[in-house]
Amino acid sequence: MAERFFERLALVGIGLIGSSIALAARRSGAVGTIAIATRTPTTLARAEELGLGDAYFADPAEAVKGADCVIVCTPVGACGLVAEAIAPALERGAVVSDVGSVKAAVIRAMAPHLPEHIHFVPGHPIAGTEHSGPDAGFAELFRNRWTILTPAETADPAAVERFAGFWRSFGAHVDTMSAEHHDLVLAITSHLPHLIAYNIVGTAADLESGIRSEVLKYSASGFRDFTRIAASDPTMWRDVFLNNREAVLEMLGRFNEDLSRLQRAIRYGDGETLYDLFSRTRAIRRSIIEIGQDTAAPDFGRPH
Amino acid sequence: MAERFFERLALVGIGLIGSSIALAARRSGAVGTIAIATRTPTTLARAEELGLGDAYFADPAEAVKGADCVIVCTPVGACGLVAEAIAPALERGAVVSDVGSVKAAVIRAMAPHLPEHIHFVPGHPIAGTEHSGPDAGFAELFRNRWTILTPAETADPAAVERFAGFWRSFGAHVDTMSAEHHDLVLAITSHLPHLIAYNIVGTAADLESGIRSEVLKYSASGFRDFTRIAASDPTMWRDVFLNNREAVLEMLGRFNEDLSRLQRAIRYGDGETLYDLFSRTRAIRRSIIEIGQDTAAPDFGRPH
Repeated sequence: MAERFFERLALVGIGLIGSSIALAARRSGAVGTIAIATRTPTTLARAEELGLGDAYFADPAEAVKGADCVIVCTPVGACGLVAEAIAPALERGAVVSDVGSVKAAVIRAMAPHLPEHIHFVPGHPIAGTEHSGPDAGFAELFRNRWTILTPAETADPAAVERFAGFWRSFGAHVDTMSAEHHDLVLAITSHLPHLIAYNIVGTAADLESGIRSEVLKYSASGFRDFTRIAASDPTMWRDVFLNNREAVLEMLGRFNEDLSRLQRAIRYGDGETLYDLFSRTRAIRRSIIEIGQDTAAPDFGRPH
Repeated sequence: MAERFFERLALVGIGLIGSSIALAARRSGAVGTIAIATRTPTTLARAEELGLGDAYFADPAEAVKGADCVIVCTPVGACGLVAEAIAPALERGAVVSDVGSVKAAVIRAMAPHLPEHIHFVPGHPIAGTEHSGPDAGFAELFRNRWTILTPAETADPAAVERFAGFWRSFGAHVDTMSAEHHDLVLAITSHLPHLIAYNIVGTAADLESGIRSEVLKYSASGFRDFTRIAASDPTMWRDVFLNNREAVLEMLGRFNEDLSRLQRAIRYGDGETLYDLFSRTRAIRRSIIEIGQDTAAPDFGRPH
C-alpha cells in the first residue's frame, strides 16, 4: 500500500499543473481527499465533470479548511492575493506551497500574509506541456522530472521532508535550493528560451503577408519547434517575466552579447567562429542525453 | 509497379540526406541503379557496408558517368568544387540537382561550371533530423515534407516535372519558386531559428560552472528543445550562414528590434505588451497544427 502523506489536499487553481497533481495524488494514494478551488465558474464546473476532486469551492478560503496540505496552482501573479484570502482559514501545521516558475517573487508576495503556525514550502515542478486548463492534466506529468523546493531556512525539516515524499510518490525527483538560485538557473534554462521563442514567432507574424503564409507551410525546417514553446500559457508567462525581471535581464544581456558576435561573424564571413560554436553546442546536446533529460531519437522528422 | 524516373542516379555526398535519398529511391523503385561518391574513405566504406548503392567511387566524376540524374548532397560550401569536378563527365540531358539549404549561392557556385546540355534543377528537401552521416538516413524522411525546386527560367519544363515526380515518389510534396524567394523564406523559418538555438546553447555553455551543470539537469524546462536544434551538423550550418548572409542579417535585424521591445517591456513591467505577443504566438501554433505541419500532441513531457 502506498504511503499517505496528507489527509486532505487543497488545490487553489486547477489548470495543467493543478489537475495533474490531483490525478497523480489520487493514483498514488498520497492524500485522503482533494478539495479544489478556482475563481472561474466554468473551470470549476469542468474540474467537477472530470472528477478531479472530492469537493469544489469558488472561495479558496473554504477549500483550505481542514486541509493539512495546500498548494496554490494559480499563475504567479495571483499568488499574493490567494495567500491573503486563505490565510485566516489555514489549519495549524498545514504545509502551504505553490507551483510557480519563479520563487523569490512568489515568496515576497505570499509570505507576509501567511500565519506562523503553518509550514511554507514553496515548490516548482519542472514539468509541463504547451497546453493549459483542467483538461490538459495527466498523472504521469511529473514522472522522472525534477520538482524544486525552496523552503525558508527556518522551515521545519520534517514538514519539508514530508512534502518531498508527497512529490516523490508521483515519480518526481526532488531538489531543494534557495529561491534566488532557483530563479537564476530557471532564467537560463526556461525563461530565456521561452522569451526567445515568443519573440521569433512574433517576428514571423509581422512579416509581409506574401512570406507569412509560407512560414507556416515550411515550418518543419526549425520554426515549428519554436511555435510549440511559444504556444504556452500567456498569463503564466507574462507573470514569469514580470516576476523574475533581474535574472531574465541578466541572462538576456549575455544572450545579446553572444548574438552580436554571431551577427558580426556572418557579416564578415568568419566561418571559424561559427563552426567552433556549432561544434561546442553539439557536445552539450550529448550531455543532456547522457544524463537522461532527453532521448537521442531524432525528433525533427516527427511523426515518427 | 512504381514508376521509374531515372535509369541511374548518382549521389555525390552520402550524409543524412544522401543516404535517405538512396534508401527512398531504392524502395520506391524510382531509379534503376545508384552510384555513390564521397571523398571521405571511411564514409564511402560505411555506405557500402550499409548497402546504400550499387557502385561506390572516391572520384565524383567517375560516379556521374552514365547517370541521367545527379544529386549533389554535400554541404553547401562544397557544391561549386563538385560541379567543377563532375562537369566534363556529365551525360547529355542529365538532370543535375543539389539538396542545399540555400539556393542563390549554390546556383552562383555551380551554374558557371555546368555544361549547357544538362538540366540544372536545384532542390531543397525541407526535412532532416539533428543527426548526420550515412547511418542517420531513413527512407521515410521526406514523406509529407516539402521539397522546393528552384529551376532557372530557361530550364526544360519536362525535365523539371520528371524530377518533381522523382521526389513525389518518396511521399514528398513539391513546390517550385525562385531561388531568391526560397532564401528569404528559409531565413526566417529555418536559418534564424537555428542561429538563435545555437546562440542560447552557447550562452549557457559559458555560464559559471556552478550554474552550468544545473542547466543540463533542469533542461526539460525549455532549454532542451533548443539543444536538439543546436545539435545539427556544424559544417552544414556554417555554410548556410556564410551563403545566405543578406537574408539572414535582414531577419536577424527584425528579430533584434522585436527583442529589444520585449526587453524594455520586462524592465518597465509592461505586462500588456508581453501578454499581447504571447497570445498572438499561440494562434500561430494553432495554424501550424491545422495545416498538418505538426501534431497537437503535447511534446514537452516526452517520452510520452
